[in-house]
Amino acid sequence: MLKVALLGAGRIGQVHARSMTASRQCRVAAVADVNAAAADTLAAEIGAESCSVEAVIADPTIDAVLIATSTDTHSDLITRATAAGKAVLCEKPVDLSLDRALATLAAAEATGRPVMIGFNRRFDPNFAALKAAFEAGEIGKGELLSITSYDPAPPPVEYIKVSGGLFRDMMIHDFDMACWIFGGPPARVTAHGAALVDPAIGTAGDIDTAVVTMVWADGRIAVIKNSRRAGYGYDQRLELLGSGGLLSAQNVLENTVQKVTPQGAVAAKPVHFFLERYMRAYEIEWQAFLDALTQGAPMPVTLREGVAALACAEAAARALVGGVTVEITAAMLGAGDA
Amino acid sequence: MLKVALLGAGRIGQVHARSMTASRQCRVAAVADVNAAAADTLAAEIGAESCSVEAVIADPTIDAVLIATSTDTHSDLITRATAAGKAVLCEKPVDLSLDRALATLAAAEATGRPVMIGFNRRFDPNFAALKAAFEAGEIGKGELLSITSYDPAPPPVEYIKVSGGLFRDMMIHDFDMACWIFGGPPARVTAHGAALVDPAIGTAGDIDTAVVTMVWADGRIAVIKNSRRAGYGYDQRLELLGSGGLLSAQNVLENTVQKVTPQGAVAAKPVHFFLERYMRAYEIEWQAFLDALTQGAPMPVTLREGVAALACAEAAARALVGGVTVEITAAMLGAGDA
Amino acid sequence: MLKVALLGAGRIGQVHARSMTASRQCRVAAVADVNAAAADTLAAEIGAESCSVEAVIADPTIDAVLIATSTDTHSDLITRATAAGKAVLCEKPVDLSLDRALATLAAAEATGRPVMIGFNRRFDPNFAALKAAFEAGEIGKGELLSITSYDPAPPPVEYIKVSGGLFRDMMIHDFDMACWIFGGPPARVTAHGAALVDPAIGTAGDIDTAVVTMVWADGRIAVIKNSRRAGYGYDQRLELLGSGGLLSAQNVLENTVQKVTPQGAVAAKPVHFFLERYMRAYEIEWQAFLDALTQGAPMPVTLREGVAALACAEAAARALVGGVTVEITAAMLGAGDA
Amino acid sequence: MLKVALLGAGRIGQVHARSMTASRQCRVAAVADVNAAAADTLAAEIGAESCSVEAVIADPTIDAVLIATSTDTHSDLITRATAAGKAVLCEKPVDLSLDRALATLAAAEATGRPVMIGFNRRFDPNFAALKAAFEAGEIGKGELLSITSYDPAPPPVEYIKVSGGLFRDMMIHDFDMACWIFGGPPARVTAHGAALVDPAIGTAGDIDTAVVTMVWADGRIAVIKNSRRAGYGYDQRLELLGSGGLLSAQNVLENTVQKVTPQGAVAAKPVHFFLERYMRAYEIEWQAFLDALTQGAPMPVTLREGVAALACAEAAARALVGGVTVEITAAMLGAGDA
Repeated sequence: MLKVALLGAGRIGQVHARSMTASRQCRVAAVADVNAAAADTLAAEIGAESCSVEAVIADPTIDAVLIATSTDTHSDLITRATAAGKAVLCEKPVDLSLDRALATLAAAEATGRPVMIGFNRRFDPNFAALKAAFEAGEIGKGELLSITSYDPAPPPVEYIKVSGGLFRDMMIHDFDMACWIFGGPPARVTAHGAALVDPAIGTAGDIDTAVVTMVWADGRIAVIKNSRRAGYGYDQRLELLGSGGLLSAQNVLENTVQKVTPQGAVAAKPVHFFLERYMRAYEIEWQAFLDALTQGAPMPVTLREGVAALACAEAAARALVGGVTVEITAAMLGAGDA
Repeated sequence: MLKVALLGAGRIGQVHARSMTASRQCRVAAVADVNAAAADTLAAEIGAESCSVEAVIADPTIDAVLIATSTDTHSDLITRATAAGKAVLCEKPVDLSLDRALATLAAAEATGRPVMIGFNRRFDPNFAALKAAFEAGEIGKGELLSITSYDPAPPPVEYIKVSGGLFRDMMIHDFDMACWIFGGPPARVTAHGAALVDPAIGTAGDIDTAVVTMVWADGRIAVIKNSRRAGYGYDQRLELLGSGGLLSAQNVLENTVQKVTPQGAVAAKPVHFFLERYMRAYEIEWQAFLDALTQGAPMPVTLREGVAALACAEAAARALVGGVTVEITAAMLGAGDA
Repeated sequence: MLKVALLGAGRIGQVHARSMTASRQCRVAAVADVNAAAADTLAAEIGAESCSVEAVIADPTIDAVLIATSTDTHSDLITRATAAGKAVLCEKPVDLSLDRALATLAAAEATGRPVMIGFNRRFDPNFAALKAAFEAGEIGKGELLSITSYDPAPPPVEYIKVSGGLFRDMMIHDFDMACWIFGGPPARVTAHGAALVDPAIGTAGDIDTAVVTMVWADGRIAVIKNSRRAGYGYDQRLELLGSGGLLSAQNVLENTVQKVTPQGAVAAKPVHFFLERYMRAYEIEWQAFLDALTQGAPMPVTLREGVAALACAEAAARALVGGVTVEITAAMLGAGDA
Repeated sequence: MLKVALLGAGRIGQVHARSMTASRQCRVAAVADVNAAAADTLAAEIGAESCSVEAVIADPTIDAVLIATSTDTHSDLITRATAAGKAVLCEKPVDLSLDRALATLAAAEATGRPVMIGFNRRFDPNFAALKAAFEAGEIGKGELLSITSYDPAPPPVEYIKVSGGLFRDMMIHDFDMACWIFGGPPARVTAHGAALVDPAIGTAGDIDTAVVTMVWADGRIAVIKNSRRAGYGYDQRLELLGSGGLLSAQNVLENTVQKVTPQGAVAAKPVHFFLERYMRAYEIEWQAFLDALTQGAPMPVTLREGVAALACAEAAARALVGGVTVEITAAMLGAGDA
């Protein structure tokens, strides 16, 4: 049985704690957090030890760590944990700085330790079913991918200011989805966006509504639409046109009830936000990490793929500012390090 | 080119007039109605002659008549028109009296002239597609048929009093659908119902909400649900469980627009009533009648089938009063006359 | 914290064991089964003691038992457990014999101990949302309820022979749904059915396809359709016509993926069977039982309601054989015992 | 009653002929076509005179003409017909050359005669219902518009060569939809595309798959996706995210039948192509033209709007070639001529 530790006892750390303790393939030995009280509480709840990050990394009996700390610590923790011989599952994004992420990639790959990035949406049963149908050839060759990804409401502006911006904080998921569906990163990226939802987001130097077009070397195209506010709830959809048909993954509703009155036919609202929508995906994600570790299979989402998503975000940010199409170069993908 | 006449210039006669004049296979020579002014107006509009029913029947150059007069005249007009050598398309129901309908069947069949009953729903593209898929074997053997048929609002009680009752006036369509889908009449019928929508309908001796179960000799079952009031509009659906799957024809909505707000996902209302829903079916129905006449093919809906639907209604009425299951006998179907 | 025991370590007992051990409001102290090895295995897995039914009932420290044994033992165990002062959650049906169930009702009510019957479907989030919308008055007064309930495939004929028949074994759930939605048992019941799926089921004296119509004293109607085989998977739907509109709970599909090709638009299959469909309902059911116990609230599904569902099944069985409508009398509902 | 003439007796002219002859507000006096035989046939069919274009324009008794000739004649015919005092309904696009279209705009506006461009999709009941709901404020302020527009199969390469390219020939409709929904032309346009469906289309200098992003001065964004081949049929959808919710117009299917089998739940195919999908829109379009003429209301789609759509196409073509974002200038919209 694997001995694992959880770094980060905040909201997303608590979500992971549920999956980690439910598995019979691992035992959660330790929880660490800069907020010691948070670590204590969560550790007590799941029967683990509360200790420092340093102690976790120094403990040679811990096989793997799940990094759910703040984004600015990811690169450092990935580097230190892999250097200490541990396998790592790290929350997205790898970093807000592409340069730093590339350095982390080089360092981690040098250790040979497996690192997985927590792009949870790949494990959503709906998106996974779409991917599987596509891989099975059910609609032929992929040509045009559309990703719709709307949050129910914008976060506080204080959060926006430290988030790295919409592309690195929110659309990073969609960049990964596009690269995942099309089997690798695009050749170039164009971006459009504005602060249509909240002018304060614009004042803070960010946007809340955006469209990014990604083009692959062979002409395939992906379009990503993001909004920080779809008042009706969380909206997460994929649609892929192929040479033989169309695959789509529709949004997830709260229930199957419909009401028909003189006002029309009303179906349920979408589930509210990512915790409701992706709880099952988080469970499957953790299981996939354990399966890869115990069976020696490749990580389902590699650190290199996490860097590619960040390269797309970096390119989109530059494209938006310059009003130009930005090429994704080999250097941006850490190609020289592979 | 066939020379045809329209008997009845009321609401449904006007609907048929559109299909009749649009066809290039026939010419509408005459319109007759007990309300001469109505006949004059409609005749003028479509470029036909306004004349008496007697004149139409006496005119040997008229090949076919469409009977859209009041129900109490149907039997007489079918009998006279076929005796005069004309082909007939008669609106449903054949009659409110099964005995009279059986006499009409005997008389009309003795002339050898073709008679079609206007069960328009058979020509609805949705129901026709379901029937075609079933006949093509797409779900194997039929086992359990469900018919949902709700009007948007009850008619005036004055209409109810002369309507022949819910079974003969409204459910007659559904009886025909069930016999059509399953290829012949059932062995027995059970009925339940009440005046839940409007107590005045109950006072008038009728019901406004009903469930009828039909059982075929080999055990196949059909359930018909009727309500005089589905406040949200017209609701017309079929669902057939077969040995290999399920076929359903969903209701028809005004348009494909959906609105998602915090109150849920709202689709359009159903189309309001039968004229909106079945306008295309009326056109196809008339064309099917002409096709049968000009190509010598059997009528798509025979008078005998019209009698069978009435026999089901008669059985349901008796089943409701007696609280018993009523057998459909050969005599009720005019079997001895075939 | 409540101390509870599980009687029955078979398939459904194992399902309940998951909900029981996941709750923080109770501790599963013991597991009993006539198959001691099954009890041993499950007890070891969940950290409970394996012991005899007698020992569980004799242990005064056990507050509540969940009865998931074979149906023929339900009445006896309910009686003994309540006599021993325990609260009971018993799987459906109460019994195959209405007389025995009525005796059990009298005995259990005399003890004053709470008994809940495990009609899991009431706790399905979809059906619960429909019920809540109806109770909130969203479609006015209920008039016509339709229940569709199809299994993916018939059980072995050996099972059929001891099942009590389709009405007591399968439709019992739907009888409860109808009584739950309409707030009490009907006045009378009519039944139709046949062995259309498997002649061997007919030879065994049972049916596999059935339609039952229930009528309430005030004229409201419910129609239940059952089939032992909907080849495409489990099909569980409700539809309620009210004075102000229609509420429906659609079936549950495996995922939200759609594929559009020249063959049409294909959505996912329904989830396969009741374990997939109702797993969440079982969890909520157990939680509702604990909530009622700890907060002194009335049981969400009473033993009396379990008897009413059985009375409907008994009436339907008699109606089918006799070809008549059968009244549900006060005696059949145990009215004199209340 | 208006006296009208039809210029062009080809496929789309024949479609319009049906709407024109069905209206009681006008009489189709003449049909003209460079192919005199085609004009003769159609004229005979609808009871009109077959004559030359010159004769139609020279006839002072003809109030209005519908131009359904080849695109290269549109500008000339609009100019001559308006100069002759006639009202004009001209098929899209105005021209393949923006410069020529601007000259036509100047000339036609100088005559003061009404000119309508036949953007039929505005009259589709689904899109019109979406627009009406949006204008009624049902989702607040519009922010992000998505247009999906796929043809079932690419036209012959010979057609592609003279079509003006995907942007002017096919996406011109979608440019108009976007300008219509958002109430005016965008500030700038970006385009991506490739020949993914048929390399021969690429060899001919065109693309068959494209994504265009349009940005309005206030930050609103529209994304248009085009493909020459959605093998499953015609696919025409709109989706508009607003500050208060989402409006979408789904694709139109052949019928409402669904089939559920072990392979999943199959709905009908989309209707095959634009004639099936937009037949009703063509009828409403013609009626809207007549209504505007007889009631002195502004044209529902002005020539100026037709030019704006062409300006978007021109900008997209330049954006694609240059890999840059192209501004829509006032000069491109004929602003100086208004």
